[in-house]
Amino acid sequence: MTGPLDLPADHPFGLHHLPYGAISTQGDDDVRLAVRVGDHALDLRAASADTPWAQTLGTPTLNAFLELGPQAWADVRTWLQDGLSDPARRGAMAAHLHPLDTVHAHLPLQVRDYVDFYASEHHATNVGRIFRPDGEPLTPNWKHLPIGYHGRSSTVVVSGTDVVRPTGQRKGKEDPAPVFGPSVRLDIEAELGFVVGRSTLVGTRVDVDDAADHLFGVALFNDWSARDIQAWEYVPLGPFLGKSFASSLAAWITPMAALEAARVPLGEQQPEPLPYLRGSGPGLFGLDITMEVRLNGTVVSRPPYRSMYWSPAQMLAHLTVNGAALSSGDLFASGTVSGDDPATRGSLLELTWSGSQPLALPDGSTRTFLEDGDTVTITATAPGPDGTVVGLAEVSGTILPAR
Amino acid sequence: MTGPLDLPADHPFGLHHLPYGAISTQGDDDVRLAVRVGDHALDLRAASADTPWAQTLGTPTLNAFLELGPQAWADVRTWLQDGLSDPARRGAMAAHLHPLDTVHAHLPLQVRDYVDFYASEHHATNVGRIFRPDGEPLTPNWKHLPIGYHGRSSTVVVSGTDVVRPTGQRKGKEDPAPVFGPSVRLDIEAELGFVVGRSTLVGTRVDVDDAADHLFGVALFNDWSARDIQAWEYVPLGPFLGKSFASSLAAWITPMAALEAARVPLGEQQPEPLPYLRGSGPGLFGLDITMEVRLNGTVVSRPPYRSMYWSPAQMLAHLTVNGAALSSGDLFASGTVSGDDPATRGSLLELTWSGSQPLALPDGSTRTFLEDGDTVTITATAPGPDGTVVGLAEVSGTILPAR
Repeated sequence: MTGPLDLPADHPFGLHHLPYGAISTQGDDDVRLAVRVGDHALDLRAASADTPWAQTLGTPTLNAFLELGPQAWADVRTWLQDGLSDPARRGAMAAHLHPLDTVHAHLPLQVRDYVDFYASEHHATNVGRIFRPDGEPLTPNWKHLPIGYHGRSSTVVVSGTDVVRPTGQRKGKEDPAPVFGPSVRLDIEAELGFVVGRSTLVGTRVDVDDAADHLFGVALFNDWSARDIQAWEYVPLGPFLGKSFASSLAAWITPMAALEAARVPLGEQQPEPLPYLRGSGPGLFGLDITMEVRLNGTVVSRPPYRSMYWSPAQMLAHLTVNGAALSSGDLFASGTVSGDDPATRGSLLELTWSGSQPLALPDGSTRTFLEDGDTVTITATAPGPDGTVVGLAEVSGTILPAR
Repeated sequence: MTGPLDLPADHPFGLHHLPYGAISTQGDDDVRLAVRVGDHALDLRAASADTPWAQTLGTPTLNAFLELGPQAWADVRTWLQDGLSDPARRGAMAAHLHPLDTVHAHLPLQVRDYVDFYASEHHATNVGRIFRPDGEPLTPNWKHLPIGYHGRSSTVVVSGTDVVRPTGQRKGKEDPAPVFGPSVRLDIEAELGFVVGRSTLVGTRVDVDDAADHLFGVALFNDWSARDIQAWEYVPLGPFLGKSFASSLAAWITPMAALEAARVPLGEQQPEPLPYLRGSGPGLFGLDITMEVRLNGTVVSRPPYRSMYWSPAQMLAHLTVNGAALSSGDLFASGTVSGDDPATRGSLLELTWSGSQPLALPDGSTRTFLEDGDTVTITATAPGPDGTVVGLAEVSGTILPAR
């Protein structure tokens, strides 16, 4: 007889993965932390009750666990992997498993500060060509620093949350004055989010070599964008309401430890960045994660994360070089992931070239931007240890009509 | 014999004011909420122990109290004013007073999302003239919407916290490549911060008429700015590291209820804003708050808050029109307050016209931007009820050398 822990070696959520989330169940409304094992969620509050981490893991968010730092992250991972594989202990663990289709997922962290970067050269180049067809596609600073800006942390929602079409001001070139109404250019941005642990003090910085001490894990991220609202508002202080209505985060955070086999060398950076962005080497890595973007079930893009220009460690080092504090629960995202090939672009803005080249869907309809009722789902895979595969948990959302 | 509660009628921190803060004392390291009464701090954890608000006011931050909403804010204010003036009860209250010079002030809220606006027409015009001398000083969107952007909440610090000079990239017009080092154009921004209470759900909005239900109070705010870092990084996604190293908030939050007498009509807005920014009238108000900016003790500016173009209610309505959620503990700031008169400009960038007109200080030195060791203190007064004065608590900080 096989049980829920007898997972095939190629299961994308096997014991080599073990991403963290938060769940409630029909019998227990309390939100508690969990780990995804195969097609089940292990209730961490219950499973950790007799461990040194009972208090930390007995909370509804990862924030306290994130604050413990990399040694504790490794220790808990070892405890889980041992407990779930040791025949003498797995029976006790299995008692705390819930089938995934019986649990309700919650956002597993209280997001503190949220920053969105702009780390794909292909994406930034495409956007530059669309918006400034007569100028240089990249701004002069682009290859010297990972450009980023702060977003709204309280509108980060968990995968599965419906997204209400935002309303606001927009102004077309021919409009004499701005008009008010629901966005008519509602877009996606396929991104990777990075969850940060261990707070730092204002006035200190995290070196690019030490970034691993603060990079807890990753999750797929969809930074929904209202291109018309954004275009009218964003000069001179950057995106605001065009982004702050919703950003969706996958329900399960994949620890960096599960992505060791996915590390790849970073592409060449020319001109060479300043020393604080280079360090001695360990901060310069890419991640071989291939994403799939589905619109109403049809794959419309396969963005390759390994094509990103700036590494996550460089983003973190840049974020703190001025002395900005980190908090456990900070989230930063990569910006739209777009590859060189047009079929790998991570936004509808690029895929339809600002609406001029509509996408054809199998039902005979076409899309420039999102329509009410559309569902966008992003999934991804990465190489795991020993030929296994790590499947990043999906991030999905459906557009509801404006209120 | 007069006691600490026998305050002269013209005391700027009399019973008509009662701002909220957080303190610890030599005998008790625990951070607890407090109310400033004259030159004392009333320990709210102790004073409220037998009240319905004991649990809410017995915490180290205002967040739970902010979530209770305007009726509770009014009820607690009435309880305080009655208890502090009723001869039969004030003795018991007085037992929980601590002289201000014996308490240590803490940031009285966990700042959730922090947004900075750009609501002074004079400031935006000056900045436009400095940075784009050949173009229109105001961007085309400026009079149609209150421009704002998200800042870093975890680097909001309480008044009195030293500010480490930030390090980062800058690039002068003649530099062939960016250089790395401490900012050489470190500036202030004299602003008013607004503390938000009562959370809302993602996908809902707060009408301009209902903004008062969420506007808890105000505090002076200094949004320290590294102009050189900002200038190099901010195109196209807005200010980031040029702002996120420190923003200082006064230690005492003045309730909106104490500023009833300071309300003034909003100046004319032409062209007329869209209906969601007008409402039926109650959201359109200014505040007659006069600020004083001191550099090493010398008054260098007197920015008048009544000259602001956009009202706080309009900023809040705009912030949520796209469905962005509010959290109790959100903070939004006005942007630099600058009046028409050059002596009322709220930043050194404007006061020295980008460094071309240095300020002379009484010690014979001059300043374009801030030097290490400089202390900047902002204070303000507003009319209170019955001819009284409300003195907003100071926000102050001293520049430490870069690390």
